[in-house]
Amino acid sequence: MLEIVDINCDMGEAFGRWRVGDTEDAALMGLISSANVATGFHAGDPNLMNETVQLAAEHGVEVGAHPGYNDLQGFGRRKINGTAKELINDVVYQVGALREFARRHGVRLQHVKPHGALYMEMAANPELSQIFVTYMRTVAADTFIFCMGKSATHLAAHEAGHPVVREFYADRDYDDSGSIVFTRDTGRLDPVAIARKVVRACKEGRVKTVAGGDIDIEFESICFHSDTLGALDIARNMREALTAEGIRIAPVSKILTS
Amino acid sequence: MLEIVDINCDMGEAFGRWRVGDTEDAALMGLISSANVATGFHAGDPNLMNETVQLAAEHGVEVGAHPGYNDLQGFGRRKINGTAKELINDVVYQVGALREFARRHGVRLQHVKPHGALYMEMAANPELSQIFVTYMRTVAADTFIFCMGKSATHLAAHEAGHPVVREFYADRDYDDSGSIVFTRDTGRLDPVAIARKVVRACKEGRVKTVAGGDIDIEFESICFHSDTLGALDIARNMREALTAEGIRIAPVSKILTS
Amino acid sequence: MLEIVDINCDMGEAFGRWRVGDTEDAALMGLISSANVATGFHAGDPNLMNETVQLAAEHGVEVGAHPGYNDLQGFGRRKINGTAKELINDVVYQVGALREFARRHGVRLQHVKPHGALYMEMAANPELSQIFVTYMRTVAADTFIFCMGKSATHLAAHEAGHPVVREFYADRDYDDSGSIVFTRDTGRLDPVAIARKVVRACKEGRVKTVAGGDIDIEFESICFHSDTLGALDIARNMREALTAEGIRIAPVSKILTS
Amino acid sequence: MLEIVDINCDMGEAFGRWRVGDTEDAALMGLISSANVATGFHAGDPNLMNETVQLAAEHGVEVGAHPGYNDLQGFGRRKINGTAKELINDVVYQVGALREFARRHGVRLQHVKPHGALYMEMAANPELSQIFVTYMRTVAADTFIFCMGKSATHLAAHEAGHPVVREFYADRDYDDSGSIVFTRDTGRLDPVAIARKVVRACKEGRVKTVAGGDIDIEFESICFHSDTLGALDIARNMREALTAEGIRIAPVSKILTS
Repeated sequence: MLEIVDINCDMGEAFGRWRVGDTEDAALMGLISSANVATGFHAGDPNLMNETVQLAAEHGVEVGAHPGYNDLQGFGRRKINGTAKELINDVVYQVGALREFARRHGVRLQHVKPHGALYMEMAANPELSQIFVTYMRTVAADTFIFCMGKSATHLAAHEAGHPVVREFYADRDYDDSGSIVFTRDTGRLDPVAIARKVVRACKEGRVKTVAGGDIDIEFESICFHSDTLGALDIARNMREALTAEGIRIAPVSKILTS
Repeated sequence: MLEIVDINCDMGEAFGRWRVGDTEDAALMGLISSANVATGFHAGDPNLMNETVQLAAEHGVEVGAHPGYNDLQGFGRRKINGTAKELINDVVYQVGALREFARRHGVRLQHVKPHGALYMEMAANPELSQIFVTYMRTVAADTFIFCMGKSATHLAAHEAGHPVVREFYADRDYDDSGSIVFTRDTGRLDPVAIARKVVRACKEGRVKTVAGGDIDIEFESICFHSDTLGALDIARNMREALTAEGIRIAPVSKILTS
Repeated sequence: MLEIVDINCDMGEAFGRWRVGDTEDAALMGLISSANVATGFHAGDPNLMNETVQLAAEHGVEVGAHPGYNDLQGFGRRKINGTAKELINDVVYQVGALREFARRHGVRLQHVKPHGALYMEMAANPELSQIFVTYMRTVAADTFIFCMGKSATHLAAHEAGHPVVREFYADRDYDDSGSIVFTRDTGRLDPVAIARKVVRACKEGRVKTVAGGDIDIEFESICFHSDTLGALDIARNMREALTAEGIRIAPVSKILTS
Repeated sequence: MLEIVDINCDMGEAFGRWRVGDTEDAALMGLISSANVATGFHAGDPNLMNETVQLAAEHGVEVGAHPGYNDLQGFGRRKINGTAKELINDVVYQVGALREFARRHGVRLQHVKPHGALYMEMAANPELSQIFVTYMRTVAADTFIFCMGKSATHLAAHEAGHPVVREFYADRDYDDSGSIVFTRDTGRLDPVAIARKVVRACKEGRVKTVAGGDIDIEFESICFHSDTLGALDIARNMREALTAEGIRIAPVSKILTS
């Protein structure tokens, strides 16, 4: 039974004049505790990163870097077959860029969370996770890594003693292994069903799987996506349902020690 | 009469598998004191930035960020008509990216030097210089700005009390205003003539102009370009000539207080 | 007094998963006669180009290429200081790409219309217009060039005997020279006022200017922008108003001989 | 025993100011019969495409489009997990762009050959090959497809009755299945050994494999890479050896009917 939980959401996932989804970041900022800010490779550009970090700072939302594959057209949801070393160089580049905007607006970098297909690849790839964690140990020893509980990333962070946060995915399905089912696009989901799923995960530590099973799930942060249609309704329902159950919402840096 | 001077050079100005010029960065690193590392918008990519910072660190060469216009094809030598705010957001992004590689390799960011057409635009644009200096004051109060002595950038840095370094351009021509004559490409130059020009600038503080004039010039750092044909010969001749005249070479952070 | 006029609109100006404005291309296709399809440099990507050409073909809307500066982030509304030769190489590349999708869907390329800042630069730059027209003469002798009546582009096309179409801008202001006032963004406009302005331009050949003047204007096609807020209302009002005045709407290839 | 064979080579695989390898395209043009011109996604830019097509036209070398994955940094040698439909849209875009430069210089498009990891993916992926061949049938019924003899691409083209050319790779190794061993980089190779390997393949239709085997190989065109170190020596040795054996060299459009 969780008494306190973080809610994280991808923010700044637009590009230039373009937007995606039906929800404004400004509306969501009041409902979350941690923002994963897109860093220009799968989404985001310097102007938007500047705005998004400022927006987060104004709302007291903690800021994380959300690096992805270098593929704006594919929104970072297509795997690119790079070596582990070059993919981590891409991550270093993006984390540094975001960290600079955080410095500019006087806030710290709370966490790093890889995006989309890179997140899934890292979850499945011990070498990639290892190089990532080594980099984080070197330059960001107190910055949380966000990942799935059942992942090579969590294992590598845990073994290195690096601060790590396990996520529960509100708007994604689970398979029996405890991994989310990756998708490039999701349709419109039912906010009430999501809220119920999230509350159950917090109170019972259990979630249904696509195969019809029911598995244990442990986490410190709940994730949902700003580009899911109806994201605002999802966030409101989820937040109300959690509050109604007496579960408090706070950024992970207020919950865990890094 | 300068007794000690910095030599800075653009490094890491390749992309992916491609190279430019006839000189390897590794050969030049032993001859310079400050490296301006390309940050991915006009040249450079995360893999190369990682290598270049590591190479500089191994040679005891100080590292600076070298942000440019977002134009790989044009090598940052074509002006893009962005607003001052968006151009500085591009700079923040790039400086942060480079700073992260510096942190990874345990070295500091000594300086920031805009590249190519952005350097020239900033020199001529007080608003752009002002926003740039304000950003530098906020997040990098002890990081040098490299610019021409006769420039809006120098004026803005000077007025704000920000540490600033004036450059002398070994492989570019001067006009009577004390500004360099901007070019997208230069041919092969005479290393001996360059060395003579540099020594004279150091000892007499004077340089010939393209119009046939002869003007005063003040500086703390000498710049040459790694993509100029014969860059290695230029560097060797220049360094030998300076040493023969008893002028020492050191990074600006060893010459000035920031 | 125009009895028949073309209505052209920029189509496919999204990128990847992102969209701009509040209007779907599919809704506008039924209201226009010529589509300027974005070709990937300022907007558009191969998937979207494929869809947009198919959509135009299904609606019997004629297809044109809409090449822009290579600047997705700036939406092609920031000038890039390239040489005339390299800018036209960019145009050739984009026109060819679009023409291939047209071939794939069995439709011809009716016209080429440069986008945004490139359109304005070409209007003011005789060398650029000249090289563009020469290229069009060579490979697309029967493909219309869209431009402002008062422009170097029109002059160059006219002198070369190349088929050319003059545009009237429904959702942009005019200055006393007969040029539109270029803007990177426009707010929400009044569809009724626009319809009135368009009808007057068609019937009287006159338009008010921002300086308060009233000037002659000649054209064969009316342009409005799909990214202008309320584009659908603008298109409907304009079309109804024209029809009510007995002015027919048809693609330029049905009005003029190329 | 082949009496006549095509030699194809990747051309224009630079970007902006950057180059790769140690060989100028202009030197190689005199030694080959078909040029695969890079189309901007893995290498090449509009200026270079214009130059390269012109250079080929001047040398009487036939021109083909060489589309790749959208990954300049990785040189198209990293697989990107796109859907078949979106990858073919990328191909359509690139082929069209190149075709336009060919039209501008008054030459036809002889062939299309996917590049690098896309070539290998297509060889292994029947769905991707099928959509590619369908597109080629629609808009380029007489344009050759270049591929490996043992590939899904060859099978799809063959079944559709589309003109197709099988390649022999001079500077790549073979495995026992008759497929080349894909590599992102190759070291310096022995030109004499390559020439011997090529002559044997032409005369005996046999090639050694990395596993020590010896297999049958059929082809109409020999491929080598301009970015392989010493490409000029490789080309000269190969050409001399073929000529010494009485094997003539000509573009496939002179050998086969399309």
